[in-house]
Amino acid sequence: MANSIGQGIFQFTKPISIIGSAAIGGAKEGEGPMSAYFDRICKDSYFGQTTWEQAEGALQQETVALALEKAGLQPEQLDAILAGDLVNQCTSSSYGLRGLELPFLGIYGACSTMSEGLLLASILTDSGAGSHFAAATSSHFSTAERQFRFPLSYGAQRTPTAQWTCTAAGAAVLSAMPQAGAPRVTGGCIGFIRDLGVTDANHMGAAMAPAAADTYARWFQATGTKPNDYDAIVTGDLGIIGSELFCDLLMKQGYDAVNVHQDCGAKMFDPETQDTHAGGSGCGCAGSLLCGYFLKQLEHGTMRRILFAATGALLSPMLVQQGESIPSISHLVELQADV
Amino acid sequence: MANSIGQGIFQFTKPISIIGSAAIGGAKEGEGPMSAYFDRICKDSYFGQTTWEQAEGALQQETVALALEKAGLQPEQLDAILAGDLVNQCTSSSYGLRGLELPFLGIYGACSTMSEGLLLASILTDSGAGSHFAAATSSHFSTAERQFRFPLSYGAQRTPTAQWTCTAAGAAVLSAMPQAGAPRVTGGCIGFIRDLGVTDANHMGAAMAPAAADTYARWFQATGTKPNDYDAIVTGDLGIIGSELFCDLLMKQGYDAVNVHQDCGAKMFDPETQDTHAGGSGCGCAGSLLCGYFLKQLEHGTMRRILFAATGALLSPMLVQQGESIPSISHLVELQADV
Repeated sequence: MANSIGQGIFQFTKPISIIGSAAIGGAKEGEGPMSAYFDRICKDSYFGQTTWEQAEGALQQETVALALEKAGLQPEQLDAILAGDLVNQCTSSSYGLRGLELPFLGIYGACSTMSEGLLLASILTDSGAGSHFAAATSSHFSTAERQFRFPLSYGAQRTPTAQWTCTAAGAAVLSAMPQAGAPRVTGGCIGFIRDLGVTDANHMGAAMAPAAADTYARWFQATGTKPNDYDAIVTGDLGIIGSELFCDLLMKQGYDAVNVHQDCGAKMFDPETQDTHAGGSGCGCAGSLLCGYFLKQLEHGTMRRILFAATGALLSPMLVQQGESIPSISHLVELQADV
Repeated sequence: MANSIGQGIFQFTKPISIIGSAAIGGAKEGEGPMSAYFDRICKDSYFGQTTWEQAEGALQQETVALALEKAGLQPEQLDAILAGDLVNQCTSSSYGLRGLELPFLGIYGACSTMSEGLLLASILTDSGAGSHFAAATSSHFSTAERQFRFPLSYGAQRTPTAQWTCTAAGAAVLSAMPQAGAPRVTGGCIGFIRDLGVTDANHMGAAMAPAAADTYARWFQATGTKPNDYDAIVTGDLGIIGSELFCDLLMKQGYDAVNVHQDCGAKMFDPETQDTHAGGSGCGCAGSLLCGYFLKQLEHGTMRRILFAATGALLSPMLVQQGESIPSISHLVELQADV
C-alpha cells in the first residue's frame, strides 16, 4: 500500500525494489564525463537501421532487453512496461518495443518520462496487479532536432541557451519481491503543469525550472525534509542555465539545494570540449543517467537516499508557432539504498 | 489491493467507484444517434478559441471541469488526472488542462487512451496514493485530419474504409471511498502491441481489430468467462469494417461475441445520413461514449456488467511514410453496476 501525504504525493508502506536497470548511449555521450556509466556505447547513430526513428526504437528495445537480462527475467515474466519518448505519437517506444511481446502502457511526459514511468511502475508493482513492471525511455539527437528544431542538413546555428538532445536510453525493472542490495523506490510526487510564460523553445531550462522547483518544494513540505537530508536531489535536463534558476527558485521558498543538486543535462557533456552550450536534454538524458549512474551509486552505497525528478517541456512546434508559451512538468521519485 | 490473474491482467479485491463522468461532443456528433447521451453539444468547432488545437484543449478542459462538478469535487481534491490525446506531444491535454491546477500524468495510447487512463487511474485509486484520480481524453476532427491525413482545405476524397475522427471528449472521476449506485471498475487487462502488417492508414479498423481480439481473448481465458457473460463487450473505434474483423478473429479463438459486441465508432454516426464511411474514430469517440452512454447504462441498471476496451493505432505519419506497418493496442477494463 501507499500512503497519501499530500495532493499527488505518497510514500510506500513497503519499498519497491529495482532489480535490474540498463543505460545505452550514443557516440557523443560516450565521449563525455559519464562515459564509464553506460552499459554500452553505440557509435553508429543509425543503430544498424535505415532511419533515425527506427534507430531510436532499436536503441530503446536493446536497453529494455538488457535491463530484463540483468534482472534475470524473460519478457513473459513482465506484467507491463511503461514507456514513452519525444517522437510524434511516441513511436520510438511503440515500434521499438513491439518485438518484445510485452503488455505495454504508453506514457507522455516529454523529458520527465523516466520519473513518470518509474512512479507509475512502482504503484503498479505495489498494487499486486502483477509481480514485475518496468519503465523505459529514449531520445535521439537526430529525431529530436529535425522534429523540434530544423532539418539537420540546414546546419542551423544554435543559441547559447540551447541544449543538445542526448542519444541515449534507460530502462529499469521493478519487483514486488524485495531483493537484497537493490535500490528501492520509497515514495513519489506527481507534478503540476507549470507555465511561467517562457516562449523560447531554445531556452528549455528556463521553461522547466519552475516545474522542478515546485515539485521539490511540495515534496519537502509534505515530508518535512530539506535538500541536505538527501545525498543528491536530481533534476532531469535543466542544463547549466536552468539549474541556476532552479536553485534560485527553491531558495526563494526557503530550501538551499546548491550543494546537493545534480542535473543530468549538466552532467552529461563536458562544456569545455563538447560544444553542447547549456548541456544535454531529451528523455534519454535523465533516463540513462538514472539507470547508468544514480542507481549504481545506490547499489554501491556511495549514495543512500536521493530524490530523482526528471523534467519535461510539454510544448509542440505547432503550439509554439501559434504563439503559445511552454508548459512544463516534473515528477519526483524517492530512491533509497537497501543498506 | 489487486490480484494478478495473468500477465498484465488483474482483478480488484475492492471495486473502485466512478463518482462522476462527463461527455461533450461537437456539432456532427450532436446530429448522430448518440446525441442524447452527451452532457453538452458545442456547435462551434473552435470552442470559442482561435485555433483547432486550442479548441480541442478547451473541449477537454470543459469536460474535465464538468466531470469534477458532477463528482462534487474541487480540483484541489483530485490527486492526479491521467490524460492524453492524438495531437503531437499530447498538447490538447497539457495545454488544455494546465489551467485546472492539477497533478497531471500524460499518457499516450492513441484511441485506446480512455481505457488506459481508466485502468491506471483505478490502480492509483486502489493503491492509497490518493483518494481521487481521474482519466480524460479528447479528439477533434480538424486537428486530427490535418495532422494525420491532409490539410482540410484540400477537400481530399475519403476512401470507403476511412473513419471520421470525432470531435468529442470524455472524463471520469474515481474515488477510493465506495459510492452507492456508482459504476465500479472491478478489473483490467493491459494490452500487447499487435501488428499484423497493415500499412493502410485509411483502414484503421483492420489494423486495430487484432489487438482488441487479443486483449479480449486473454481476458476471457484468464477469468474463465465468455462474451455472453457480459451485457456488452465494447470496443473503441474499430468502425463498421473493423468490428466484423474483430468478431471473426474472436470466433476463431472460440468466442462468439456477435450478439454482445458494441463498437463506439460504429455507434457514433448514422451511416445512412452522415456520410462517415466506416464510422467514427479518435480518442474522444470511445471516451465520450464510455462516459456519456455506457456508464449511464450501468448507473441506471440497464446494463450490469460490461467490458470496455478502447483501441489505439500507434502509427505516426512519418513512420508510415517510411514504409512501416501500423502497430495497435487495446487495454480493457471490467465495469459493473453497483446493484
